[in-house]
Amino acid sequence: MERSAATPPPDAVSAPVARDSNHAQADALRLRRIAIDTYRENVVYLHRDCAVYRTEGFQALSKVQIRTNGRHVVATLNVVDDEAIVGCDEVGLSEDAFAQLGAEDGHAAWVSQAEPPASMEALFRKINGERLGREDFHAIVQDIAQHHYSKIELTAFVVATHHGELDREEVYHLTEAMIDAGRRLDWGAPQVVDKHCIGGIPGNRTSMLVVPIVAAHGLLCPKTSSRAITSPAGTADTMEVLANVELPFEQLSAIVRQHRGCLAWGSSAELSPADDVLIAVERPLSLDSPAQMVASILSKKVAAGSTHLVLDIPVGPTAKLRSMPEAQRLRRLFEYVAGRLHLSLDVVITDGRQPIGKGIGPVLEARDVMQVLENHPQAPMDLRQKALRLAGRLIECDPDIRGGDGFGIARDILDSGRALACMQALIAAQGSRGFDHHQPQLGPLTLEVRAERSGVVTGIDNLQIARIARLAGAPKVKAAGVDLMRKLGEAVQAGELLYRVHAVYPADLAFARQRVAQDHAYRIGQPHEVPQVFVEF
Amino acid sequence: MERSAATPPPDAVSAPVARDSNHAQADALRLRRIAIDTYRENVVYLHRDCAVYRTEGFQALSKVQIRTNGRHVVATLNVVDDEAIVGCDEVGLSEDAFAQLGAEDGHAAWVSQAEPPASMEALFRKINGERLGREDFHAIVQDIAQHHYSKIELTAFVVATHHGELDREEVYHLTEAMIDAGRRLDWGAPQVVDKHCIGGIPGNRTSMLVVPIVAAHGLLCPKTSSRAITSPAGTADTMEVLANVELPFEQLSAIVRQHRGCLAWGSSAELSPADDVLIAVERPLSLDSPAQMVASILSKKVAAGSTHLVLDIPVGPTAKLRSMPEAQRLRRLFEYVAGRLHLSLDVVITDGRQPIGKGIGPVLEARDVMQVLENHPQAPMDLRQKALRLAGRLIECDPDIRGGDGFGIARDILDSGRALACMQALIAAQGSRGFDHHQPQLGPLTLEVRAERSGVVTGIDNLQIARIARLAGAPKVKAAGVDLMRKLGEAVQAGELLYRVHAVYPADLAFARQRVAQDHAYRIGQPHEVPQVFVEF
Repeated sequence: MERSAATPPPDAVSAPVARDSNHAQADALRLRRIAIDTYRENVVYLHRDCAVYRTEGFQALSKVQIRTNGRHVVATLNVVDDEAIVGCDEVGLSEDAFAQLGAEDGHAAWVSQAEPPASMEALFRKINGERLGREDFHAIVQDIAQHHYSKIELTAFVVATHHGELDREEVYHLTEAMIDAGRRLDWGAPQVVDKHCIGGIPGNRTSMLVVPIVAAHGLLCPKTSSRAITSPAGTADTMEVLANVELPFEQLSAIVRQHRGCLAWGSSAELSPADDVLIAVERPLSLDSPAQMVASILSKKVAAGSTHLVLDIPVGPTAKLRSMPEAQRLRRLFEYVAGRLHLSLDVVITDGRQPIGKGIGPVLEARDVMQVLENHPQAPMDLRQKALRLAGRLIECDPDIRGGDGFGIARDILDSGRALACMQALIAAQGSRGFDHHQPQLGPLTLEVRAERSGVVTGIDNLQIARIARLAGAPKVKAAGVDLMRKLGEAVQAGELLYRVHAVYPADLAFARQRVAQDHAYRIGQPHEVPQVFVEF
Repeated sequence: MERSAATPPPDAVSAPVARDSNHAQADALRLRRIAIDTYRENVVYLHRDCAVYRTEGFQALSKVQIRTNGRHVVATLNVVDDEAIVGCDEVGLSEDAFAQLGAEDGHAAWVSQAEPPASMEALFRKINGERLGREDFHAIVQDIAQHHYSKIELTAFVVATHHGELDREEVYHLTEAMIDAGRRLDWGAPQVVDKHCIGGIPGNRTSMLVVPIVAAHGLLCPKTSSRAITSPAGTADTMEVLANVELPFEQLSAIVRQHRGCLAWGSSAELSPADDVLIAVERPLSLDSPAQMVASILSKKVAAGSTHLVLDIPVGPTAKLRSMPEAQRLRRLFEYVAGRLHLSLDVVITDGRQPIGKGIGPVLEARDVMQVLENHPQAPMDLRQKALRLAGRLIECDPDIRGGDGFGIARDILDSGRALACMQALIAAQGSRGFDHHQPQLGPLTLEVRAERSGVVTGIDNLQIARIARLAGAPKVKAAGVDLMRKLGEAVQAGELLYRVHAVYPADLAFARQRVAQDHAYRIGQPHEVPQVFVEF
């Protein structure tokens, strides 16, 4: 939040060459919170008959500045014709914008035409295809983090930096600017480790295994996770089945010091706030360029105080990256920028041909994770193996560990029950939700999808399975999702169960069923049709 | 408006492989008009506790489809926490979206997740820098015209087609698609003439002189004009001082048949509707690429039934185009696309170094125009000369006129009073506003700007003069604006009046005064500093 002087709009400046016959000062309006969630775009609502609107010649969609209490916000104008929403002497603000001003309902506020943010000039140079420098990225990112950009201007930035791509140096400057725009944590430890996946693989809940394993080994791993944006469950959504994840920063910090780890939601820490703003337009456009992915992930990790990062890049026919050369290009970009930021980065390219584990959706994924921690005979082996490999790589960040020994150490920690004990301690510390993973409460409405013919599973479409689980209600409805009974390469008979959809609400199940009827995500064929593993892992 | 079957959402399709334990149909909500003008972006308001919102897993900013009466609209979701705005059993729509549905308050409506528009795939190819084909542009423009794109998606299209520019063939396909997406007029005449200026020069009201001159000559000139978007007055705003401009299409058509011309507002004719939608994002970004300018102007002209067009491209240090090579490139692009569309085009590159005429703002410009028509001794000569040249070019479209004779014929029509008579007939036909141009009612609050030293006027900044006139209230406040007393090359003494700002509201005058104090737009210097004319005209 930028601060300006706590004064009404400046008196018109007197000009030596100007003589006027009159002179006035803009009138104050009463501030009103409008209970409309415009998802991170500041919107200001003015009545069409409001004197300020009429005399200032504002037009709908123009950007205006609202000042009160020495603070100001910039917002996009919507014009209202209903006094029940906003009166003629009021200025209405959408929820986010109202919160940013930090004033109370009814407080006097002044409205004026907003000057375009100073960084617009740099944005136009980028739209015209020019290369931007360090100062340009800092100016743009500061304006974005302070909500000075409208949704239209944010989109222009995202598209202009997507198209034709930023070069390495520009990605570095963008990442650095995103770190500088927010809070930066310091854990006072020489090594702070973290893991991250670029996403796209349903059921891929390795963080909830990796954190207890590496914390049990003694490494500091303060994992802040995200909620699902387009997937059926994020780590925060799944952990929330077991324990509270929305913790005040002080509590989170105490847990990390005592237990060497945590599994909490990252938003409250205000790390890389520009990233949160940009997501608001990247998500509806499904734009995810390499440059933006690198800047988003690395800025969050560095801001969170990490010194060592293991990054999981899955490759497969329905993963985010579909070929090895593409994955290698992305790896090099991550490595270059991490190097400039002095972050020790270990990229692991993994098998992304199908979902990981069995369950997809918060409760189902929490069940899988707990089964692996308990060494349950039905625990999904692929989830276990992948978590051990990633944890092993992190453990090798420990200078006392020889290269190649990490996997074995991780397996010992898991098999011995020390990882389970650590997880139980984290759940208790964050606040247990009393989840019984031996009898998980799954959505009672079900849809069973069976093989239409005999053969071998030759494909499971990650994107389609994710869509079905989302339509069934995940992640919002925690007990909803998809439970997979067969994985790639397994033989099935016609009529055998492939997966079960769980839902809580009838409408959700109907939507999932429609989608299943269009494409149920499984391909049944001959053994030689199973796609090759892109990687040895 | 696309039409779909007049039914509630389809029953969940039954799949041979799917067996479910339950099944449901989405509930209807009651339609409610929300009196919020979101400026051409469809917004849907759902209460946070609305069952449809909760169960469908919508997220704020996601796009949803609202169906009723066999029609549907696509809208961006805002989530509301106030039952006074929208209730739990209601679906609220912003004004434009409500109008598009064509249903009444309280009517049953169904809400569902919107599939992304089919043309998004082509848009992503353009974002990635690929060349698009004819079908791609048609698909995109149809979706835009039917309001299927959100503001974010529109911005992505505008930025992606701006950056790196479309090639000639792509501009042609875009223009053709924009024509095909709307209504197309047919005047049943072999020749329909029009003139247009690319804009950027305050006071440049030649259309109001050219139309009566060429109509008096007998050419058909059904001029539909725009209102000002970023300038202090458009032709429609200025003509509105003299006569009604918002005419039903039937009346407009009758006037054209009787008087061979008209000066009306073009929006009601539904020509090139995609252009109107795109302006909503181009304006706040101030993006105006050559490709978009050509597609916008030529699609409107061809849709309006024009066969011959004279296009005015001003060049000057503060004009839209600042060098002759730039203007020539734009001319060639206009000529290429016009040729493909079989539109006869005559480009005139004109002197854009300063405003045209004296008055800037609707009333002041109407005064100037009437003075020229009346051959008043104080009529601005530059406005007269430019209008005669443009009218002369159009008159030479007449196959009976020899090249070079047009200017003389235009001058005879103006000097003889026939142009004035034609204008008076048009004013009477459209409905006179009773404006007395001998005693125009100018804004009573004034600010006089005087020369700070003696010398010669060496520069008048078009952009700055336009901003001052807009801050003074133009075009919304018709009597507001700027009246210029000195033009380029004229000698002034220190303290002599350069221009007078007129305003109606004190706040407006205060804002204009602030701007004048920062930069009053005039440069005073030595005679040799007057910038060269870029063109012989």
